[in-house]
Amino acid sequence: MPALHHQDSVFVLDLGADENRFSPDWLDDVHAALDTVVDGSAPAALVTTGSARFYSNGLDLDWLSAHGDQAQSYVADVQALLARVLTLPVPAVAAVNGHAFGAGAMLAMAHDFRVMRADRGYFCFPEADIDIPFTAGMAALIQAKLTPSAAIASMTTGRRFGGTDARDLGLVDDVAPEAELRDRAVERVRALAGKDRGTLGAIKSTMFAAAAAALHG
Amino acid sequence: MPALHHQDSVFVLDLGADENRFSPDWLDDVHAALDTVVDGSAPAALVTTGSARFYSNGLDLDWLSAHGDQAQSYVADVQALLARVLTLPVPAVAAVNGHAFGAGAMLAMAHDFRVMRADRGYFCFPEADIDIPFTAGMAALIQAKLTPSAAIASMTTGRRFGGTDARDLGLVDDVAPEAELRDRAVERVRALAGKDRGTLGAIKSTMFAAAAAALHG
Amino acid sequence: MPALHHQDSVFVLDLGADENRFSPDWLDDVHAALDTVVDGSAPAALVTTGSARFYSNGLDLDWLSAHGDQAQSYVADVQALLARVLTLPVPAVAAVNGHAFGAGAMLAMAHDFRVMRADRGYFCFPEADIDIPFTAGMAALIQAKLTPSAAIASMTTGRRFGGTDARDLGLVDDVAPEAELRDRAVERVRALAGKDRGTLGAIKSTMFAAAAAALHG
Repeated sequence: MPALHHQDSVFVLDLGADENRFSPDWLDDVHAALDTVVDGSAPAALVTTGSARFYSNGLDLDWLSAHGDQAQSYVADVQALLARVLTLPVPAVAAVNGHAFGAGAMLAMAHDFRVMRADRGYFCFPEADIDIPFTAGMAALIQAKLTPSAAIASMTTGRRFGGTDARDLGLVDDVAPEAELRDRAVERVRALAGKDRGTLGAIKSTMFAAAAAALHG
Repeated sequence: MPALHHQDSVFVLDLGADENRFSPDWLDDVHAALDTVVDGSAPAALVTTGSARFYSNGLDLDWLSAHGDQAQSYVADVQALLARVLTLPVPAVAAVNGHAFGAGAMLAMAHDFRVMRADRGYFCFPEADIDIPFTAGMAALIQAKLTPSAAIASMTTGRRFGGTDARDLGLVDDVAPEAELRDRAVERVRALAGKDRGTLGAIKSTMFAAAAAALHG
Repeated sequence: MPALHHQDSVFVLDLGADENRFSPDWLDDVHAALDTVVDGSAPAALVTTGSARFYSNGLDLDWLSAHGDQAQSYVADVQALLARVLTLPVPAVAAVNGHAFGAGAMLAMAHDFRVMRADRGYFCFPEADIDIPFTAGMAALIQAKLTPSAAIASMTTGRRFGGTDARDLGLVDDVAPEAELRDRAVERVRALAGKDRGTLGAIKSTMFAAAAAALHG
């Protein structure tokens, strides 16, 4: 279950202690947490992280296989969350504490910044191996955040990147030992928490207009 | 007052000895200088620089606050200059001698290359702090010249980058001591001065068609 | 004459032992070789390389000057090949064994990856010097694979890059001694040969939809 905590002006959203897959309930909980984060006008910034071995494994394939008739609206809901984080009106950083796979890795990419645990966990787009091509919106999101060579290396290979490799390729901005990960992520956005939400939201919405439009279908 | 000097085939356009803000007269003077640079067919290249503590501080906010009814046409004029430099039919390099803020930093970004003084001066997009979001054209210009991570780090934070940090992030291509700055910039384009203007103009207009169109509104 | 060889699951397409320019017959031969590579569903990956001093010198200007009335359809044919390689449903790497100029360099850029001989040969877009601006499709292809600064440095200058400089700028992913070049390229794609063609083709077609559309005019 996602849970939101305060650390001064920085909100830390714990995505959960299991695989943190995007079930419909999980999506609702995350949206509700984001409502709290962006509400009002006091300084605020967002850190997301998981509390066990996973950041997030992405799509809830169990739920999806049991609700095949809702696949289209489910993917639209996932993409709406990605678009919301991409254009969130407060600074946002993913503290990638463990495995980030598929849509879980996309959620990390939607943040302004990413810090990843150095010694364990993989950052991976497995789409090329599980025969689920990226939607136009998902590809646009990832490509809006990476150099072309990093996009090709990660999106066409299914390769699993440990923290250091992910940083060297630019999938994440920094790595940290597990014990320092959350603090390092907090440090990255704390000084930015005072930005005006309307301004920052407008800046991100302008910068990523094409990807956000593609995510909204 | 902007002033144009020759150095063999390289034109050095001095943007002025103060903050070099974009007043309407300043815009006219710069356009007239560019007319001289691109006129004819003899080898030519452009270096722009300031002659005191500033490269340029960008929009002339004093003039703008006194002429609020002309804000829309003023911004269109500024964007037209940015688009002209972006697609200039001769090689162009900014020698960033000091502070480059806001539209002043955008002017530098519009050039093919940027060399910045290493020890003093800041390169900064303060938009996130002064609550003036980038226009679609300005964002397109900057993003057409930077990696995604450099665009996010500079456009969403208001951070001021000294020369070395600006170079490490890719906001500028190189740094130089103040005494060597102008020569280093001249060196970067001198050998390119013989390119055919029609060809080079067509190449840049094709490469940056989307950003130029956004700047022209 | 292009010739196709097997090396386990990796197909090595030898582009020829001369300048390997894109004559109509050469284009037909390359398409026929690509038909073989993508046919069926057994694991497959593609390496292209030349067998003498050139990877490819690009457009067949002799043929073109003798068939000026067919220039438009010829360029369309060249762009169709570039688009096909850009979205090829198997992993593809260019082993740049020697000079890659103009459309020859674009062909290398169309592959997922590039490995270049370290000690001899130039990678060069001479368009700015030979007064043939990039078509919209060709520019879109190159820019889809490079950072903005690498695109400017290579597309507006006519500069010839040796292997190491090409790697440092990101024009190629890696360099190798001549004796190891082909093996290094094979190594880069061998483990990827098992990807499902439909999935990988869909991923690349989505990632590079804009460039492919521009190439198809």
